Amino acid sequence: MAAKMAPHDANPGLIIREREPVNLEYPFDQLDEFLTPNDLFYIRSHFKAPALTRDTFELSISGAVQRPFSLSYKDLLAMPSVTRPATLECAGNGRIFLVPQVKGAQWQLGAVSTAQWTGVPLVTLLERAGLDPDACEVVFEAADKGKPKEEPVPPGDTQYARSISLAKAADTVIAWAMNGEELSADHGFPVRAIVPGHYGMASVKWLTAIRVVDKPFQGYWQTSDYGYWEYQDGNPVRLALGAMAIKSAIARPRTREVLTAGQSYMVSGASWGGDIVTATELSVDDGTSWQPVRFLDEPQPFAWRRWEFAWTVPEEKGVYMLRSRATDNAGNTQPEEHDKRFGTYVIHHTFPIEVVVR
Amino acid sequence: MAAKMAPHDANPGLIIREREPVNLEYPFDQLDEFLTPNDLFYIRSHFKAPALTRDTFELSISGAVQRPFSLSYKDLLAMPSVTRPATLECAGNGRIFLVPQVKGAQWQLGAVSTAQWTGVPLVTLLERAGLDPDACEVVFEAADKGKPKEEPVPPGDTQYARSISLAKAADTVIAWAMNGEELSADHGFPVRAIVPGHYGMASVKWLTAIRVVDKPFQGYWQTSDYGYWEYQDGNPVRLALGAMAIKSAIARPRTREVLTAGQSYMVSGASWGGDIVTATELSVDDGTSWQPVRFLDEPQPFAWRRWEFAWTVPEEKGVYMLRSRATDNAGNTQPEEHDKRFGTYVIHHTFPIEVVVR
Repeated sequence: MAAKMAPHDANPGLIIREREPVNLEYPFDQLDEFLTPNDLFYIRSHFKAPALTRDTFELSISGAVQRPFSLSYKDLLAMPSVTRPATLECAGNGRIFLVPQVKGAQWQLGAVSTAQWTGVPLVTLLERAGLDPDACEVVFEAADKGKPKEEPVPPGDTQYARSISLAKAADTVIAWAMNGEELSADHGFPVRAIVPGHYGMASVKWLTAIRVVDKPFQGYWQTSDYGYWEYQDGNPVRLALGAMAIKSAIARPRTREVLTAGQSYMVSGASWGGDIVTATELSVDDGTSWQPVRFLDEPQPFAWRRWEFAWTVPEEKGVYMLRSRATDNAGNTQPEEHDKRFGTYVIHHTFPIEVVVR
Repeated sequence: MAAKMAPHDANPGLIIREREPVNLEYPFDQLDEFLTPNDLFYIRSHFKAPALTRDTFELSISGAVQRPFSLSYKDLLAMPSVTRPATLECAGNGRIFLVPQVKGAQWQLGAVSTAQWTGVPLVTLLERAGLDPDACEVVFEAADKGKPKEEPVPPGDTQYARSISLAKAADTVIAWAMNGEELSADHGFPVRAIVPGHYGMASVKWLTAIRVVDKPFQGYWQTSDYGYWEYQDGNPVRLALGAMAIKSAIARPRTREVLTAGQSYMVSGASWGGDIVTATELSVDDGTSWQPVRFLDEPQPFAWRRWEFAWTVPEEKGVYMLRSRATDNAGNTQPEEHDKRFGTYVIHHTFPIEVVVR
C-alpha cells in the first residue's frame, strides 16, 4: 500500500508552521530571484483545501449588478488576460517576534513571496455584469469552510469570504496561473483573486463567487479575524485590514550566523508594502546609525524590491545587531514598536537580527 | 471609623451577580406593580460608576451637525421634558439557562425592569444642532471606561459608546429622572440615554457626549461585544444588537415551588419586547397545550405587560413544567431554542419552570 502523501510532502522546501490545515513558510534566507519559485511560495490556509475540478468549476458574478452571469474555467481562460507581479504577505508574518507571545501560526520572516499572476482583470468581469449605481464593494467567496478560530465565532461552518472596495477592484486580477503554471491545490486551484498591495487574506483562494454589495460588508473574516481598531473621535472602531504596511526584512545573514571579523559580507534582503518602496537603510549597530542599501529591483507598486549591502565586518569580535528600515514614496517608514491596534497582525516594526563576529 | 459602603449595600433587595463592577438582578419573583421600584431596578455595569457631579457636568452635541453645542445639567433640566415608561432588559438576561454554560454574568430572570423616565427628547437636541445631510447615526459616549472582556479587545482603556439609527433617535429620551427621582450613581447619574425597545446596552449611562456620525459606527460595544451574526447570502456578517426580542417570564410560582394539589394558584408574569405584545399563553404541561393569560396592563410599545393565570393545581401529585409564550403584533412569537447567532445574548426561547405538586 502506497503511503498517503501529506500536504507538506508536496512542498518539501517549506518550513512547517502548521500541518492541518497546511501553513508553510518560505525559507526567507534563500531569497534569490525576484520571483519566488512556486514550490517555495508560502502557503496560508484556514481549512483543508477544497477539492475543486476544472470541469465542474463555475465562477458566478452576482449581487448589485445588472446582468449577473457565470463562467466555466474554460470561459475564464478564453478571456483576455494580464500577467503582473505581486508580492503577497500574510498579515501575521513576523508574529513570532511579538512580545509577549501570542496565539496563531508562529510565522517568522517568510510568510511573504512574489509571483507573476496571470488572469482576467476584475474590472472586465464587473463591466460585463454592469454595476448598479449603489454598488460599493466586491465580496469574494471561496469554497473552503470550517469552524474558524477568532472570537466571536459564528455558529456552524463559515465559508471564507472577504470584500474589497470598488477602487481596489481596479488593481485586482482573477488569476488562474502563478509564474506561468496553473495554481496548485494549496494556492487556490483552479482560480483565486489577487489583490495586489493588500495582505494575503484579500487574495481569496478557491474563488467561486464574486458578489457586488451595496453596503460595506461586515463578514467574519474582516471583523472577528483580519480586523483592527481605528480610533475615531477616541472610540475604537473595528475596520478590515487592507493595505500591506511598509516593511523590510534581512534574508542574510541569518540569526546567530557566525561572520568572520574583517571580511566583507553581502547583507541582503527585500522591502515591500506601503505605496512604492523608495528607500531602505541598514543599521549594523542596532539602529544607532543607518546607511542606504543598493536595490536590485526597480521601484513599482505591489512588488518587493530586493536589496543588498556590502558590509565590512568589524575587526572587533562580539555580537552585532543588524536592522533594516524601509520607506515608501508617501514618507511612511517602519516604526520601532508594534502597533497594538493591529493585534497579532501588521507586524512591521524594525527588529534586530543578531549575528556573531569571530 | 465608619465602614465603607459597598455598591451592593445601597441596593440590599437585589441579587448579586457580580460585585465589581456592580451587576445586580431584580428578584423577578417579586414582580408586583407595573413600575419597578428604583431600589429593585436591575443594575448592569461594565466598569466602576464614574464620579460625575451636577456642577461640572457637560453634555456635548457634535459631529455631523451644523451648530454643535454643549449643555450643563441645569440647561438640560430647564428644557421641556417628557415622561414615558420603558422596560429595559439586559441583552444577557436569562443567560444562566443556556446549555452548555457560557461566560458572562449569570443573569436568571430579573435583568429586566420598568420605570418612568423623564428627560429631553433626543430630537429636540438634534433639531437645535441641525443635522448635516449625510448624518446617519447618533453615537452616545459615556464617562465610564476600562479594559473590556470580549475579544477582540482594543489596546488600553475603552470608553463605553454605542450608536442608534436616526429612526430610533425619534423614540429616545435624554433622561435625568427615573420614577420621579434623580438617577442614582449606578443608574447613570446625572444623565443617561433611554432607547425604548432596545436592549439595555443602548440606554447609555453616564452620558457625556452625543455625536452624530455620517457612516455606520463600528465601535467595540457593537462589534466585539453586543453584536450578533446575520447571514447575508450565506455569509455571517457582524451587526449590532438592537431591538428586544419578544419574550415572557413567569414570576410566580418560583422554580421548585411546592403547590398544593387541587387548590387554585395565581400564576403571574410579564411579557415584553417585539413590537407590541398582543398575546401571551401559558402551558402547564411543558408546552403540549397552551391557554391565554389575562393581561393586567394595556398594550403599548416599549413597556412590559404584566399578566396572570388562575391555575387549578391538578389532583395528581408530581412535577409539572410551566411555560409562558408571548406573541407580538407582527406575529413574532418566542422560539423553542436559543438562536446561536446571538451568542450569549438575546435569550428569549421558552423554557420550563418546574414546580412540585404535593
